Amino acid sequence: MTVDVAGAAAALQAADDILILTHRRPDGDTTGCAGALCRGLRQLGKRAFILENPEITARYAPLIAPCYSPDDFSPQYIVSTDIAEEKLFSDNAEPYKGKVDLVIDHHRSNCGFGRKNLIRPDAGGCAEVIYDVLMALGVRFMPDIAECVYVGVSTDTGCFKFSNTTAHTHAVAAACLSAGIDGGEINRVLFETKSRPRFEMERIVFDTMEFYEDGAIALAMLWRADIDKTGADLDDLDSIASLTRQIEGVQVGLTLTENADGTVKASARTTKEVDASVICKKVGGGGHLRAAGASFDCGMEEAKKLILQAAREQYHAAR
Amino acid sequence: MTVDVAGAAAALQAADDILILTHRRPDGDTTGCAGALCRGLRQLGKRAFILENPEITARYAPLIAPCYSPDDFSPQYIVSTDIAEEKLFSDNAEPYKGKVDLVIDHHRSNCGFGRKNLIRPDAGGCAEVIYDVLMALGVRFMPDIAECVYVGVSTDTGCFKFSNTTAHTHAVAAACLSAGIDGGEINRVLFETKSRPRFEMERIVFDTMEFYEDGAIALAMLWRADIDKTGADLDDLDSIASLTRQIEGVQVGLTLTENADGTVKASARTTKEVDASVICKKVGGGGHLRAAGASFDCGMEEAKKLILQAAREQYHAAR
Repeated sequence: MTVDVAGAAAALQAADDILILTHRRPDGDTTGCAGALCRGLRQLGKRAFILENPEITARYAPLIAPCYSPDDFSPQYIVSTDIAEEKLFSDNAEPYKGKVDLVIDHHRSNCGFGRKNLIRPDAGGCAEVIYDVLMALGVRFMPDIAECVYVGVSTDTGCFKFSNTTAHTHAVAAACLSAGIDGGEINRVLFETKSRPRFEMERIVFDTMEFYEDGAIALAMLWRADIDKTGADLDDLDSIASLTRQIEGVQVGLTLTENADGTVKASARTTKEVDASVICKKVGGGGHLRAAGASFDCGMEEAKKLILQAAREQYHAAR
Repeated sequence: MTVDVAGAAAALQAADDILILTHRRPDGDTTGCAGALCRGLRQLGKRAFILENPEITARYAPLIAPCYSPDDFSPQYIVSTDIAEEKLFSDNAEPYKGKVDLVIDHHRSNCGFGRKNLIRPDAGGCAEVIYDVLMALGVRFMPDIAECVYVGVSTDTGCFKFSNTTAHTHAVAAACLSAGIDGGEINRVLFETKSRPRFEMERIVFDTMEFYEDGAIALAMLWRADIDKTGADLDDLDSIASLTRQIEGVQVGLTLTENADGTVKASARTTKEVDASVICKKVGGGGHLRAAGASFDCGMEEAKKLILQAAREQYHAAR
């Protein structure tokens, strides 16, 4: 059953002993949502907890860890926040599959696995939806709640930079700052700080980057031995493929990553003039207009020749 | 004479044949302010132009160049936007010194060099003040005006990341997006695109960066021969000193730049634990708590020894 903000608020108003779930590889939005909702419900006098997320990182732990449910808690009402499908439940949330009372989300792909479902694909961050629900519940927007909402909204929109940022996103951010949080300091930690492994990975991208076609094509090579030396994890590698495209004049950014088994992953990122999916289809891969990929088992140097040839062809075809 | 938003709007309402000035080394805020104000005044049926800025860059030219005043224009009312003092007038604005009718600005240091002065230091971008004035004038907030305001606000606040971002900043951004502009695409151009020289400069910082004290101190060396090879201009070098501090764990980021005359500029950037000004005072320089500098005429290697020694001492003193 689909509900609107008022419907979700009414359901929460009627509920108690509430358990809130977050998704695997928890990010700022799912933890911000859960943290804000739990604190808001408690302000209304309800017993509410967040299920421990075993994959939580140091950065987002303060948002949810203080609200973790004790062992003897018997939840009567289950809420999921920012979880697109039950497959994304953390392992310890297994028992709640098929038992979610209220789904609050913003993923278009969410088919509504709860008894009630508030899904708003127009929201840049799911935390925007949580904000609306909290307001409908009459929760006072205290700084601890505002900080959770702000982290959710800002991380999911690239600090208001991405195209998913709407007027509503900015209105929610305005409310958060009005509540008295230190947005500048939060953003410094979230957006101006790089891990050492991430820094080392960027150094490799910068060091290996070569330019072709008068700077319209850039190519970086991430050799396994170099990756291993940095100690980079999946988070550190996240979005590294987009670095090549950030340079002025680059229309096709290619990144080759040597996997542990010797196979090679190629990522293509393009500006709107060139279709990345066509480039990757030429070498057996595929993807989207601006972001596509392909796999090779012929080694890095041969993969470089093949993807570069495909990129050159498509670059000239697009002119 | 100090005026508020209503006072500035009334003055503009009574004026005609208006010329708008922008500051030297024009940025997104001064050009966004002038572009929005000029277009808004024209919507009200007034004759309004922007004085050509000889230093305009390709990025911001579209905001003001279409509104440049023709040679035979005889302005009756002069407005300056985002200009903190008359020293910052472009050379061709020389004749208007002492003759500005209305100053609209957000710099705290602005002492009010106009006949009337609307100065709001609380505004993250001066374009926020322009927005308020346009609303007071009853201007319809069309996309071309909204785009100017958005560029002003977003560039001056680091895309809503810096601590000068307020609830009002976000409210103005919300109005801009509601007007129908493509914020995502504007931000891609403004914040996700690096010039090749800037990229090459960052590569040098990354390549030369060394870590001391278990990663708490980072030091980068920008040799003149390397800088010259990149073709970097002042814009490309802007804020390069802050890169060292962005790495997790770094409390003191040092950048040494070799000047054309062989002297060396040292920049220190610190997190809140360490006082950058104390480090630089030890070697004859000075500055602020988190950003300070010093000059050397002993060559790069000797300067490195001296500033590093000072940083180490202060780092340990602060623990």
